[in-house]
Amino acid sequence: MPTQTRRWHLAARPEGEPTRDDFDLRETTVEDPGPGEVLVKTLYLSVDPYMRGRMRDAESYAEPWDVGDPMRAGVVAEVVESNYDGLEAGDVVNGELYWSEYAVVPGHTLRQVDADLAPVSTALGVLGMPGATAYFGLTDVGEPTPGDTVVVSGAAGAVGSVVGQIARIGGCEVVGIAGSDEKTAWLTEDLGFDHAINYQTENVGKRLREAVDGVDVYFDNVGGPITDAVFRQLNVRARVVVCGQISQYNATEVPMGPRKLAGLITTRARVEGVLVRDYPDWTEAFERIGGWIAADELHYRESVVEGFENAPDAFLGLFEGENIGKQVVKVD
Amino acid sequence: MPTQTRRWHLAARPEGEPTRDDFDLRETTVEDPGPGEVLVKTLYLSVDPYMRGRMRDAESYAEPWDVGDPMRAGVVAEVVESNYDGLEAGDVVNGELYWSEYAVVPGHTLRQVDADLAPVSTALGVLGMPGATAYFGLTDVGEPTPGDTVVVSGAAGAVGSVVGQIARIGGCEVVGIAGSDEKTAWLTEDLGFDHAINYQTENVGKRLREAVDGVDVYFDNVGGPITDAVFRQLNVRARVVVCGQISQYNATEVPMGPRKLAGLITTRARVEGVLVRDYPDWTEAFERIGGWIAADELHYRESVVEGFENAPDAFLGLFEGENIGKQVVKVD
Repeated sequence: MPTQTRRWHLAARPEGEPTRDDFDLRETTVEDPGPGEVLVKTLYLSVDPYMRGRMRDAESYAEPWDVGDPMRAGVVAEVVESNYDGLEAGDVVNGELYWSEYAVVPGHTLRQVDADLAPVSTALGVLGMPGATAYFGLTDVGEPTPGDTVVVSGAAGAVGSVVGQIARIGGCEVVGIAGSDEKTAWLTEDLGFDHAINYQTENVGKRLREAVDGVDVYFDNVGGPITDAVFRQLNVRARVVVCGQISQYNATEVPMGPRKLAGLITTRARVEGVLVRDYPDWTEAFERIGGWIAADELHYRESVVEGFENAPDAFLGLFEGENIGKQVVKVD
Repeated sequence: MPTQTRRWHLAARPEGEPTRDDFDLRETTVEDPGPGEVLVKTLYLSVDPYMRGRMRDAESYAEPWDVGDPMRAGVVAEVVESNYDGLEAGDVVNGELYWSEYAVVPGHTLRQVDADLAPVSTALGVLGMPGATAYFGLTDVGEPTPGDTVVVSGAAGAVGSVVGQIARIGGCEVVGIAGSDEKTAWLTEDLGFDHAINYQTENVGKRLREAVDGVDVYFDNVGGPITDAVFRQLNVRARVVVCGQISQYNATEVPMGPRKLAGLITTRARVEGVLVRDYPDWTEAFERIGGWIAADELHYRESVVEGFENAPDAFLGLFEGENIGKQVVKVD
């Protein structure tokens, strides 16, 4: 039984782009699991853009962390010792834990991961929070119908790559916007997107105008100028799903941009935010996505950083667009 | 029978704020009405903010006018001669005509106005397009429920004043934002708004925070900094009805403002444009509003400019906030 564990803590509130100095690796004691509790060993931990919001001392949908708090995150872990009826040593579980090598948590907060179904790390990605976000955000808020043109920003990310494929499976024409030729090639050649635009090298507005006849659904993960360009091409009654705004998360001043509301009168477009925690039961999402994966209709990819000590770097890489598909950290 | 009429034409596309020089008063021939046509004499003509968009050479929901085109507008008119079965001389009608003293139009494009029900000028306001806009925009897009906090900008205007009262009748707490003490006094003392904020003299964000506990429905007629302040106080699942953006219509460069989309993730608010022409049948709106007027539950006011030759001034006054309630021009 381990008695000590390493755990990452928030060392300082980042000003603008976070740096490694904003994170602090500490040793802390692992208590014995009490009644109903489980000792787990982390296999994979997640880094997600929304965590940037929790480092900020401002109201957001996720409660802000205090400086000194441990970094909370989704993890996939193996049960080492269990005082919880539903779990036993060796089980693989998924939960909202910490950037920590070991942790003791109430068993009821964990869900078991079926290691036979898919690699267990997918519980952090395509069969985890990002997959559910893509599924509910697109189907429930975006409401695409066959023949619609669906545009996805951050299209090579954990959420965007799933959104575009669900739209394609649903009979839509799909455009992905991403930040490298490697990413755009993956979108069109492997994931079946109809078009992909590299915003680093191409004029998004121009390419979009050439590729499609207006936008019926825009699933936005990035915000900023890319989103400005897509808004200019919204069709009448378009739906904009605001899922993420990663280009804005490190802003040190209130980000400014072209005002967009007048355009919504012209289009009667609907712009709506989505948070996956509003959907309490993700079973439907995982059944559908799991079925598409089994039928080879939906592909996924993971970017894996090896080593627990590299968790901050993996997180920082999100803002540099380093990941293709879901970014995870392999702990062991 | 008149053989000549005066008619206002668009003389030039305004750059920024329109001026009187952008309008041109012409004499033109009145033809005899042909089969199915009606000769009408204008009693009241309408000036509406949306007309500014038609003076611009840019795509909008209303087709742009060419320079030299007559100014189209809603009018209330009296039938002088009719070759249309449903109408006879002396009938009062409402239609989309011109800033013109006389006009010949197909009878089927006109709807009869019941002069016994309400002053006929209301067919341009509370019982016309602005009233229908308020009714459908609030009920169908804003979807207020009793107890909701509803905020209206441009609250003393033709649309806003009706929106706030419908919300109040529906059991909501209503805040109006307007541009003078005379307007705010009218909102609270006569129309029953719970709170009114004079954006010319008060800090909208601060006053709003003091007055209410967040915003469930925001009905926006103005855009710009007022709207920025309201957005910061949207509640979870708030609805924003984008009906007008009058503060932006005279902009000569793309208006910039704080980016708002990240806030929509936090609130999962829905922002949606409304156009009354999407509602083909306005009967329901006029029955409800007419009933409230008859029961003295809903009040209205008109700002009347006298004289056909003053139509451009009445229009320009909209952008100065000169009107309280619906602005009309009394022709005769």
